[in-house]
Amino acid sequence: MTELVTFGETMALFAARRTGPLRFARDFDLGLGGAESNVAIGVARLGHRATWIGRVGADEFGDLIRATLAGEGVDVRALSDPDAPTGLMIKGRRTADLIDVRYYRKDSAGSRLTATDLDPGLIRSARVLHVSAITPALSASAREAVREAIAVARTAGVMVSLDVNYRKALWTPAEAGSWLRETVGDVDVLFATEAEGRLIADAAGAEALAKALAALGPKHVLVKFGAEGAMELSGGVVRRAAPYRVTEVDSVGAGDAFAAGWLADWLAGADPDRRLGTACAAGAFAVTSQGDWESLPRRADLTLLTHPADGVNR
Amino acid sequence: MTELVTFGETMALFAARRTGPLRFARDFDLGLGGAESNVAIGVARLGHRATWIGRVGADEFGDLIRATLAGEGVDVRALSDPDAPTGLMIKGRRTADLIDVRYYRKDSAGSRLTATDLDPGLIRSARVLHVSAITPALSASAREAVREAIAVARTAGVMVSLDVNYRKALWTPAEAGSWLRETVGDVDVLFATEAEGRLIADAAGAEALAKALAALGPKHVLVKFGAEGAMELSGGVVRRAAPYRVTEVDSVGAGDAFAAGWLADWLAGADPDRRLGTACAAGAFAVTSQGDWESLPRRADLTLLTHPADGVNR
Amino acid sequence: MTELVTFGETMALFAARRTGPLRFARDFDLGLGGAESNVAIGVARLGHRATWIGRVGADEFGDLIRATLAGEGVDVRALSDPDAPTGLMIKGRRTADLIDVRYYRKDSAGSRLTATDLDPGLIRSARVLHVSAITPALSASAREAVREAIAVARTAGVMVSLDVNYRKALWTPAEAGSWLRETVGDVDVLFATEAEGRLIADAAGAEALAKALAALGPKHVLVKFGAEGAMELSGGVVRRAAPYRVTEVDSVGAGDAFAAGWLADWLAGADPDRRLGTACAAGAFAVTSQGDWESLPRRADLTLLTHPADGVNR
Amino acid sequence: MTELVTFGETMALFAARRTGPLRFARDFDLGLGGAESNVAIGVARLGHRATWIGRVGADEFGDLIRATLAGEGVDVRALSDPDAPTGLMIKGRRTADLIDVRYYRKDSAGSRLTATDLDPGLIRSARVLHVSAITPALSASAREAVREAIAVARTAGVMVSLDVNYRKALWTPAEAGSWLRETVGDVDVLFATEAEGRLIADAAGAEALAKALAALGPKHVLVKFGAEGAMELSGGVVRRAAPYRVTEVDSVGAGDAFAAGWLADWLAGADPDRRLGTACAAGAFAVTSQGDWESLPRRADLTLLTHPADGVNR
Amino acid sequence: MTELVTFGETMALFAARRTGPLRFARDFDLGLGGAESNVAIGVARLGHRATWIGRVGADEFGDLIRATLAGEGVDVRALSDPDAPTGLMIKGRRTADLIDVRYYRKDSAGSRLTATDLDPGLIRSARVLHVSAITPALSASAREAVREAIAVARTAGVMVSLDVNYRKALWTPAEAGSWLRETVGDVDVLFATEAEGRLIADAAGAEALAKALAALGPKHVLVKFGAEGAMELSGGVVRRAAPYRVTEVDSVGAGDAFAAGWLADWLAGADPDRRLGTACAAGAFAVTSQGDWESLPRRADLTLLTHPADGVNR
Amino acid sequence: MTELVTFGETMALFAARRTGPLRFARDFDLGLGGAESNVAIGVARLGHRATWIGRVGADEFGDLIRATLAGEGVDVRALSDPDAPTGLMIKGRRTADLIDVRYYRKDSAGSRLTATDLDPGLIRSARVLHVSAITPALSASAREAVREAIAVARTAGVMVSLDVNYRKALWTPAEAGSWLRETVGDVDVLFATEAEGRLIADAAGAEALAKALAALGPKHVLVKFGAEGAMELSGGVVRRAAPYRVTEVDSVGAGDAFAAGWLADWLAGADPDRRLGTACAAGAFAVTSQGDWESLPRRADLTLLTHPADGVNR
Repeated sequence: MTELVTFGETMALFAARRTGPLRFARDFDLGLGGAESNVAIGVARLGHRATWIGRVGADEFGDLIRATLAGEGVDVRALSDPDAPTGLMIKGRRTADLIDVRYYRKDSAGSRLTATDLDPGLIRSARVLHVSAITPALSASAREAVREAIAVARTAGVMVSLDVNYRKALWTPAEAGSWLRETVGDVDVLFATEAEGRLIADAAGAEALAKALAALGPKHVLVKFGAEGAMELSGGVVRRAAPYRVTEVDSVGAGDAFAAGWLADWLAGADPDRRLGTACAAGAFAVTSQGDWESLPRRADLTLLTHPADGVNR
Repeated sequence: MTELVTFGETMALFAARRTGPLRFARDFDLGLGGAESNVAIGVARLGHRATWIGRVGADEFGDLIRATLAGEGVDVRALSDPDAPTGLMIKGRRTADLIDVRYYRKDSAGSRLTATDLDPGLIRSARVLHVSAITPALSASAREAVREAIAVARTAGVMVSLDVNYRKALWTPAEAGSWLRETVGDVDVLFATEAEGRLIADAAGAEALAKALAALGPKHVLVKFGAEGAMELSGGVVRRAAPYRVTEVDSVGAGDAFAAGWLADWLAGADPDRRLGTACAAGAFAVTSQGDWESLPRRADLTLLTHPADGVNR
Repeated sequence: MTELVTFGETMALFAARRTGPLRFARDFDLGLGGAESNVAIGVARLGHRATWIGRVGADEFGDLIRATLAGEGVDVRALSDPDAPTGLMIKGRRTADLIDVRYYRKDSAGSRLTATDLDPGLIRSARVLHVSAITPALSASAREAVREAIAVARTAGVMVSLDVNYRKALWTPAEAGSWLRETVGDVDVLFATEAEGRLIADAAGAEALAKALAALGPKHVLVKFGAEGAMELSGGVVRRAAPYRVTEVDSVGAGDAFAAGWLADWLAGADPDRRLGTACAAGAFAVTSQGDWESLPRRADLTLLTHPADGVNR
Repeated sequence: MTELVTFGETMALFAARRTGPLRFARDFDLGLGGAESNVAIGVARLGHRATWIGRVGADEFGDLIRATLAGEGVDVRALSDPDAPTGLMIKGRRTADLIDVRYYRKDSAGSRLTATDLDPGLIRSARVLHVSAITPALSASAREAVREAIAVARTAGVMVSLDVNYRKALWTPAEAGSWLRETVGDVDVLFATEAEGRLIADAAGAEALAKALAALGPKHVLVKFGAEGAMELSGGVVRRAAPYRVTEVDSVGAGDAFAAGWLADWLAGADPDRRLGTACAAGAFAVTSQGDWESLPRRADLTLLTHPADGVNR
Repeated sequence: MTELVTFGETMALFAARRTGPLRFARDFDLGLGGAESNVAIGVARLGHRATWIGRVGADEFGDLIRATLAGEGVDVRALSDPDAPTGLMIKGRRTADLIDVRYYRKDSAGSRLTATDLDPGLIRSARVLHVSAITPALSASAREAVREAIAVARTAGVMVSLDVNYRKALWTPAEAGSWLRETVGDVDVLFATEAEGRLIADAAGAEALAKALAALGPKHVLVKFGAEGAMELSGGVVRRAAPYRVTEVDSVGAGDAFAAGWLADWLAGADPDRRLGTACAAGAFAVTSQGDWESLPRRADLTLLTHPADGVNR
Repeated sequence: MTELVTFGETMALFAARRTGPLRFARDFDLGLGGAESNVAIGVARLGHRATWIGRVGADEFGDLIRATLAGEGVDVRALSDPDAPTGLMIKGRRTADLIDVRYYRKDSAGSRLTATDLDPGLIRSARVLHVSAITPALSASAREAVREAIAVARTAGVMVSLDVNYRKALWTPAEAGSWLRETVGDVDVLFATEAEGRLIADAAGAEALAKALAALGPKHVLVKFGAEGAMELSGGVVRRAAPYRVTEVDSVGAGDAFAAGWLADWLAGADPDRRLGTACAAGAFAVTSQGDWESLPRRADLTLLTHPADGVNR
């Protein structure tokens, strides 16, 4: 029985091997990524059953997505869309610290997700429904799918988790803010950076922001500070976690990893301090290698970051 | 003063480094390609001034196209479209002999070309206008651009060259055939494979086909047999050229090279036998390396293929 | 419900990127391979449910094997052995035509397979049990596992398939011949090269050899001639299949592909001529790329080889 | 009409992909570099017309230089020398911080530049003439070319810019110092590191050094401190600019980028503070990727470094 | 005449090119490594004659080891073992700071070293015998070889050097400690990290530990603190050396380099302060590139680290 | 005691990884090559002691040459020239069959070889002196070195072997012919292609040519036909050898391998038929991989080519 259900668009990913303007990159690695499937992989790595639902093209990239997620132990419901190709991401690094991502996802298979692609019974049987605010920006049908999934989950008492994941290539801050404010009242767990939080509510300082967001509904508000750690407001209690020190290779996917870590520990019934620590550790692992999700940790890995001196294992 | 004007869509190209299903390809090279810009490069390499007109996105791939074509000595008129991205090609090889090309060009900058993007004065000042039947399949505005360009050229007495370049991903044989039959009467030089020729006219055997095509208007009909050479019907005379023997690495671009070789020698006033030989040699060079156009020959290279034993040049 | 059950050792595979002595190879790709899992993948690609059982180490290579086979749609029963590492293969090419494979599989997890690792109920529920004569050469316990699996299958009326797959690094021709002669009487389908067939029976010429082998029990005897095609003796009828013409990149895995093609078509109830053709086509695909199994065909691919001229698919 | 004219030697560049002694580097990328053409590219990227003049061999490397500079929008006057090859640079990294550059430029085409290769009319029509003190160290004829170009520029009131660019492989400090002291009186803008400045004048501290240099003629003295920023003395006013914080990949080309940034802003009529900031930003971009010039900024890029947190652009 | 004799196991090494879990590494470089041969190379690079003795398989990896060590100027006595393969190391990086090394060395050729493989006359003729505590953990015969070699050296007055090099994959701390305590009394120079030192003696703090170790016999005790430098206790005098600041790429081999630097300077008769500095510099160089030994310094390189600003050498 | 002495220039070699014009090659491998050191390696691989003498620069490339040749078991006398760099070769492939080699060897260390660099005692102690006609084209001093070496060998009764190895980049056919005709009378073994043979003597047909050459002095005349095999005229007897069938990757070095095979078998006292077969087999191996010498065979390899079907060795 699955514990977490998520859905969204997963794309083939061409990642440049070297830094500099993309047109000089020359060599690219083929992989894949998608905010929600990254979360599903992260939850599965940490020992919980996760299901990912989405549309892919009837093409090699769709097959790559299906095979990779299945290989990672995710329960994959990849619907094959005969009329649209799998979307693409091209990822470059203008400098080591300036990631540059381009999409070829307009009218892609993934963006054609509809409410009828989802399985209400599956959602009801899970303990968490996780969505991102990328999906409602993809198409009207995808937005409707998000709405219905949340409705099904709430009716069934399934916890609803939302990661803001603002994408300026898909909609404006005003459009995103409007949808988020409509939706946040139905959400139990909210993941956001400070800038993302301010799309929804206005408040000076991270703590005030978290409180303003919690006032709109979410029982758990997670504010992420990137390399500076994170903050959680749950049950009126504020917790802060210091970041792990790692050599950053590629920051894409860190937020998804953070959500996966938090949700996996919630599923595991971990205490709040440990849960926030796991979220931070997962985020730290995510930035240590180039892919969006490849370096996500297993339970046994979580201790590796605390004692780097023990790392040589020969 | 330019001698040849051409226009169409040029795309960024991700080419898989190894054979096998695309999802296992792992490593890709970034390059670019487009049937008409391949011809322009080929003509420029052989010593004639060529102009390429097209739309590209206001993005790194658009810059790559502009810089590369300019670097190759083509007179580039790359219009920057702020509202659409540069199109993409993904090229894999299912086996060494089965090229597998996927497009991400729907609503691309290149497909948004319009008649007003062209420069009638430039066309009138040239000696050849070269188009491919890819462009009319991209969009209504692009089709209109082809129609107008041909009209301008004919009025001005500029030779019109058309390469069929049938792309099944863009339109059906019936759609292509209909457009080609409408257009062929305004064409002076027609390049086609046997299968492509049969989209326009029906006849048993290559020679009968060539005659049937010539009866529709073109003064020069070139029928290409891939690794088996080519045939030309000009002024009622049939000429055949044997292929050069080369180790084929990637067949994409061979037809464009053939057209470039033929047109360059027409511009140079070469005699018909030599002109057909140059076309075949250019086609042979095109298949010897992975990119669509990188291995196109210069005049001095044309003799290299005849004496392979002399090739070690140290 | 699974249709084919197989088991054996699958290893991590370091494949040299260039030809020449292995010590100059410099660059290696990480992959995986195993005769039986190659067959399972091949059968799954052709649309039938296949289960692979085997031991892997509790290490990254074991995880790679598990994830990859699952991703390919094989029902994976990869037992994690805490006391032994996953075996390794190093594959080089002394020349383009001389494959050079080294093993690090002594006392590996895969070689520690035992009869109790198998699931008799699963074997009974399948339609085919496929084994190779690599497994009995790995260890006494593995040999016992093969013996018991065959016994279970025969009792339940499940068809038993055996591919000789002689490995000189594991045992001598005499040892192999002795085991094969003991076992062949319990086998329904036998796959062998001519040289392998002569480990079991002696006869001049391929056809006489096939008959001598059939006389020992197998209802279907398949004799493979590499790039020269194959022969089948079934029900007293000899069929020969011409090879497909492909550019060979790496011959390893061709025999496994052949078996997969044959078994998949047997499961599909195809007629014998088509079945042998499918076996040859699968073998042909296997040699077109570097990995042992990556290029195995799907049903839709099987037609690609017949019309190579149609291969450009853009 | 060109705004900046520069000339010098540009070479093909083999850059090692990994750190360590060059003999273990194994993999190399082919590119190109030259102090003056780096400046021309940098100025063109920032929106001003720049012309580069130089000799290249009648070989593939000469073609590479010509095509690349033209592709970058530089007005290229690459004279093809039939009697000498294009020079080479081999760039390794002994450690991440110790760049190791070797030349094969003795008697190269580039070193055979003569005064007659230059176009006095072109120099007179420009607003800036930029030279480096590499060129006078290449050959007697190249030294003469620098002398004459400066004379033409001064007579015509064209601003003369000189970057010291001391190369110990080409001449001794004494030789360089002698030439620099002869020349500095004819220079309007002088770019130097502290160590380079002391080849010309002696003074304790950077500010005193700048003043001593300015006393010799230059209206603008730029002293570069590498990762520590830079200082400008213009019209008796000293300005200091803090460095941008970037992850350094390859420091080669930073000085050329600095000069390009300064000169482009001088051409743009920017105020002195902004001009020095642009110089520093261009230098910062230059070190973020491996090539000497590939990562140079456009105007729109200049703001990227100030808000690194905004860098994720998906 | 050789100055230093050492022996042990050297293995082929597959090193992952990217960070992340090993199963996603994809690309590997082939090299080689072994603690004792690393020391021999390091000593040879610094100008002293070093002999390495060991068994390798009669295979390509054995040839690679022999050729590489000979090429590095080490006097190689690589015995070819026809019955066992050369051992393997697989080196990945879980994160940039977490090296992950796996062995395939059980029953390898190298582990089959015996006392009779050594040459007592050679040991007697040298000035230093260097061993590591890896060798006694490989096999009973290898342990016996170490014992006899030390006995020969002591009898002949040859200085005995021991690097603890604890490998948890080979034996437990208790097993290692027991052997080390038995052996340390016969040792003149002892190299250990703090944790390794505590396998032998118990004391709070590095200095107390060094004294406790020296009390067991060694005249020179070297305690290594990784990136924090090192400490030496010789003749009752404690010396500390600060680390060099370098960008770390791969920490494997740093300890071997340290030992090589120290022993080379001992052979050269350098004064103790310089000797410890050379050891630290060699260790610093070792971490600057990926291989275990490729970046080891020559005498002339030792000054490079002190003035990084001088590093650009073009 | 060495059996064969040879000398000449060995260079660092940058080899393009892909076919096509060199300026598009992008990725290069670093290696080394030199006609005479290739022969020395080939002879050493086949079991005979060979000495190579030459000058290299005091640089990384010189070290690479020294280490690699020593690693290959050649007795290396690489004189370090402080005043000149190691020469370079850049090797591209215009097509798979058209090798394109460029040199940077003018005034290189290798070209500065002098007669005094050689060791007459060493030559006298050997059984064969092998030279190529590249060396006399490098410089006057190198030409003098060849003259003196041959004189020493003849006086001492050491067999003199000469490979014509005509290099058009170094001298004209007339210059080469003049030197060859002066020298051939002092030569015992002559290696040449037909075209090279005609630089010395004129005759229609290969056999007549061989006889004309033998009439000038050489006891053994070897005429090489590339992929078509070879011919030997010794003691008035003509022998022809058919070529081995291999997939050609890079033809450079085939002639050197042929000479090495012949000379090694002469040293071994093999009968003439076998000797010519070994020469052909060595030549065949040389073309199977990219480097000039890496794939040269050992004795045990010589049988591999005869039974390609046995090549799978797992």
